[in-house]
Amino acid sequence: MLYRQELTKPDGRSLTLYGRRPIEVAGPVPSPNREPLEANPHLRWHPLRGEWIAYASYRQGRTFMPPPEYNPLAVTTDPENPTELPQGNYEVAVFDNRFPSLSPLAHDAPKNIVETMPGLGKCEVVVFAKDPAASLAGLPLDHLELLMEVWGSRTAVLAQDPRIKYVLPFENKGVEVGVTLHHPHGQIYAYPFIPPVPKRMNHQEKSHLEKKGKPLLETLIAAELAADTRVIYRGEHAVSFVPAWARYPYEVWLAPIKAVPDFRALTPPVRADLARALKTTLLKYDGLWQRPFPYLMAWYQGPVDGQPHPESHLHAEFFPPYRSSDRLKYLAGTELAAGMFANDALPEQKAEELRAVAVTL
Amino acid sequence: MLYRQELTKPDGRSLTLYGRRPIEVAGPVPSPNREPLEANPHLRWHPLRGEWIAYASYRQGRTFMPPPEYNPLAVTTDPENPTELPQGNYEVAVFDNRFPSLSPLAHDAPKNIVETMPGLGKCEVVVFAKDPAASLAGLPLDHLELLMEVWGSRTAVLAQDPRIKYVLPFENKGVEVGVTLHHPHGQIYAYPFIPPVPKRMNHQEKSHLEKKGKPLLETLIAAELAADTRVIYRGEHAVSFVPAWARYPYEVWLAPIKAVPDFRALTPPVRADLARALKTTLLKYDGLWQRPFPYLMAWYQGPVDGQPHPESHLHAEFFPPYRSSDRLKYLAGTELAAGMFANDALPEQKAEELRAVAVTL
Repeated sequence: MLYRQELTKPDGRSLTLYGRRPIEVAGPVPSPNREPLEANPHLRWHPLRGEWIAYASYRQGRTFMPPPEYNPLAVTTDPENPTELPQGNYEVAVFDNRFPSLSPLAHDAPKNIVETMPGLGKCEVVVFAKDPAASLAGLPLDHLELLMEVWGSRTAVLAQDPRIKYVLPFENKGVEVGVTLHHPHGQIYAYPFIPPVPKRMNHQEKSHLEKKGKPLLETLIAAELAADTRVIYRGEHAVSFVPAWARYPYEVWLAPIKAVPDFRALTPPVRADLARALKTTLLKYDGLWQRPFPYLMAWYQGPVDGQPHPESHLHAEFFPPYRSSDRLKYLAGTELAAGMFANDALPEQKAEELRAVAVTL
Repeated sequence: MLYRQELTKPDGRSLTLYGRRPIEVAGPVPSPNREPLEANPHLRWHPLRGEWIAYASYRQGRTFMPPPEYNPLAVTTDPENPTELPQGNYEVAVFDNRFPSLSPLAHDAPKNIVETMPGLGKCEVVVFAKDPAASLAGLPLDHLELLMEVWGSRTAVLAQDPRIKYVLPFENKGVEVGVTLHHPHGQIYAYPFIPPVPKRMNHQEKSHLEKKGKPLLETLIAAELAADTRVIYRGEHAVSFVPAWARYPYEVWLAPIKAVPDFRALTPPVRADLARALKTTLLKYDGLWQRPFPYLMAWYQGPVDGQPHPESHLHAEFFPPYRSSDRLKYLAGTELAAGMFANDALPEQKAEELRAVAVTL
């Protein structure tokens, strides 16, 4: 059972609390800022790449490595110094980013030499747990399942806005990927268009389904399971693996074995197994060098454009910044300028390293 | 006048020396390694992105931050400790990367669950100058012109191989972008296909030329010059500017005002002005915070597929990693996973900062 309570912060931002019991909150709904949010991001068209760029110039002033005594994602204990979260019996919290790159409040796009439009959309922060020292890997399986239900709930809520076309939950973890707050949290971006990467993915998935009659990633996962050289976790309903086509040395993908278009469509048994796949993968990452393993984790879903998406296959892709325990993989000339990734390591070798890490759920 | 001498290293790699006078070399052609090069990179198809990934597993062992007493890009002084370069009166040197992601020697692509093929192509290192402490910004204008002639020569040489479809000269500069050798140098990647970013660019350029009868970037540059709010350098034939569609806060583009498809097609007056645009831009970057400014600089050219490319417009794009003097712009969730860039700064503001930096050529 998923309980949810929707609240509004003094500055107008929304706060939604989730838990396994009916939500009870003590005290007023807090916010570090009380001035009304005046978000007005805009988009400009990049004519040579054929894609939109978001501009939100207030973002330079966003919270950056606060001193340890102030954590905006912790539960408020001193009403004189409110954080983003109230006291209460909830387990996961979601609120509007104070400095969004995309916002439903966007209303104005200054004219320019290229096409512009208001940066409509939404940027949400998802606080994974109340404990500032927790990490996804250490959370109980039921908590991870709850989080997946929350991602599904957010997808459903955001999809109700007809202006939203794509919902991407992700987590940036570690100073190596620029994380400014260490309290376990992720983000959700809701876009007014299907962004370039999911768009290419959807194109590939659609044309494969049309030609072959089966979802593309489902076919690839069946091949990974048959090859069994890169599989990290193999459950009844879910799998994680270093894909044969990994762009990052420690890249891992995590998915239901059978295609499910998005978090809303997950059944409880598949979600439970996906949580096991997630926890196993994260524990192996942390176990590899016996230290917290930084990564970008992105969850790709089908577009939320009101159409059915039998071609889409919900999955996570992990992009870790390390290529070995003491060397970062920098994205440089060929990756950023040409778009061709050069991987120093064979996926088979990196999978072997991760497979060798013993973990206990 | 551009003089060129082609040599072969003891390990089979090619070395080409360039200068304004007939090249004279003293001593044998050196190489830090003498074992024959055994490069055999391969490509795998990424089915969900629809792009090739290059695998070259020996690259983990490549030279990394050598001690100051050994610089493989310096001229050899001690024959017992050969570097990559001989003594001689050349000014710029180009040699095959010892650890290439793409190589003409590629001969074998192990079968996998996705399509594979040999990683044919070429990765060259371009030593910009002999002085290990030099930087592009500090080189005389004539030397920058020479370098552009070298890029043109390399493009012509590489284009002769019918397997090569795209040539990308670039420079990664600064520890912030992962540079392992500080001697001023760049690289050239020659691809057996048009890589994803130039491919999208070429598609946009082609469809604009068909529809409007004028090259896309030429039209945009005319609009930038007319707006005159983001222009950094304005010469008779060349321009540099923070584009209205900048993805990075300090992104700068540099181009001939009129479309020229590639370095081979540059006329001397345009090349000379492009060198002034380059030096001006680099001096402004270094002057901004009074310290060397890191960046990725990529030079986009038309494809070298044997077709004319009237739609293509040679230009450089600079992607600097800083968003302010003390903060890096990390590519995270929305940039890497979704492909939508979120820029904290308006191009107009960043252009103003760069325009305010006074420089003397």
